[in-house]
Amino acid sequence: MRKIKMIVEYDGSNYHGFQSQKNAHTIQDTIENALYKLTGHKIPIISAGRTDRGVHALGQVIAFETEAKIPSDKFYLALNSVLPEDIRILNSKEVETDFHPRFQAIKKQYSYYIYTKDSGKTFLRKFAWCNSEPLNIDDMIKACKQFEGRHNFLSFCSSGSSVKTFERTIEVCQLQQKNAYLKFDIKANGFLYNMARIIVGTVVDVGRGKIKVNDINDIIKARDRNAAGSTAPPQGLYLMYVEY
Amino acid sequence: MRKIKMIVEYDGSNYHGFQSQKNAHTIQDTIENALYKLTGHKIPIISAGRTDRGVHALGQVIAFETEAKIPSDKFYLALNSVLPEDIRILNSKEVETDFHPRFQAIKKQYSYYIYTKDSGKTFLRKFAWCNSEPLNIDDMIKACKQFEGRHNFLSFCSSGSSVKTFERTIEVCQLQQKNAYLKFDIKANGFLYNMARIIVGTVVDVGRGKIKVNDINDIIKARDRNAAGSTAPPQGLYLMYVEY
Repeated sequence: MRKIKMIVEYDGSNYHGFQSQKNAHTIQDTIENALYKLTGHKIPIISAGRTDRGVHALGQVIAFETEAKIPSDKFYLALNSVLPEDIRILNSKEVETDFHPRFQAIKKQYSYYIYTKDSGKTFLRKFAWCNSEPLNIDDMIKACKQFEGRHNFLSFCSSGSSVKTFERTIEVCQLQQKNAYLKFDIKANGFLYNMARIIVGTVVDVGRGKIKVNDINDIIKARDRNAAGSTAPPQGLYLMYVEY
Repeated sequence: MRKIKMIVEYDGSNYHGFQSQKNAHTIQDTIENALYKLTGHKIPIISAGRTDRGVHALGQVIAFETEAKIPSDKFYLALNSVLPEDIRILNSKEVETDFHPRFQAIKKQYSYYIYTKDSGKTFLRKFAWCNSEPLNIDDMIKACKQFEGRHNFLSFCSSGSSVKTFERTIEVCQLQQKNAYLKFDIKANGFLYNMARIIVGTVVDVGRGKIKVNDINDIIKARDRNAAGSTAPPQGLYLMYVEY
């Protein structure tokens, strides 16, 4: 039995998130159906992150075991031939049989895009948060920096999470303005449920003047979801890469 | 009876082109249905250009007559409230009753995008021609310039067109490389059926080494569709603006 690791890119617009659910169209089910079509076997896959409905990925990582005779480094091409166009496997390779894409991940990076212009929104409505309200970008850039370091991020975790520890280390939390886009890059050793989207939503509330830059530390210390800002919508979020 | 002119942006991915057709989902039908919903009247619209299935617009122009009491400059907001998200009216104003968006257009500009990278294609498959084959960009830039000027463009017109004259003046035909994109801008006093896409397809054939830069003039002179290159796929094409 070989274990195969794959890097997966997907447009999450038409899916109810990554994780398999009853009566819902998910990325996991779609990939598992494709593996069944290809190999004739039901092969469960494990992912590095369970992205929400409407969230995208450029570097999701999945792994699974298989007895199929397809060469490991060509497996992605075979799988792409039976996958829909909005899910693409970028590469595949054989890994140690104890490899676990979620438990062994040491860092993850998410990016989040806000599109700030009115014209062109039609094309970006599923791929960015289209938000043309006036925002104080300098304050937002400063606010981002407050998130860096090791903190208890309970204030930035939606309910429904089953984790027990809320300490995470954010290595990079930065915002750049690029033409009509605001691009957030958040790199951490782990993310709580909705953490990236609540950080972005809170930073946007700083840009709106609803929250002060200097309040970010108090919001972190509060360990209370109600202390933080809104949750940014899913379509701006991209799982960029996972480090092992 | 007032005449209203509107600038329309649309993602053409889910439509069978602009023009109304039996048993097909078109942009025209969708806008006319929205006008009916808004005013209670069947209002026919006329457009500057009849874009094909899958082609997009950032600056399509439409006009129609109405007796509805909605203020002209607010009409677009009312119409957006009953239109689907992939069609957005950018503005509206009252014009002379003899205004005709197609016959009075003096210039039109189309842009065409080729995306040349492999990663990220998942997000661009409906918004650019995703083509990562090696292309000689310098030759393509030179080939574009050959199209500028007044020519008979019969070699660059698909059959099925009802026009009688094939002379058009291309003011600008340029190609720029921007990061992972190749962007064509073609500005002319008019376009024949599929003209922009056949020019792009022919220039790509130059990039592939199938057609030589110096052959472009002979292809134009041939006045024969078979002399030119392939028709580039629709999803890379955008109607950018119309001048009156």
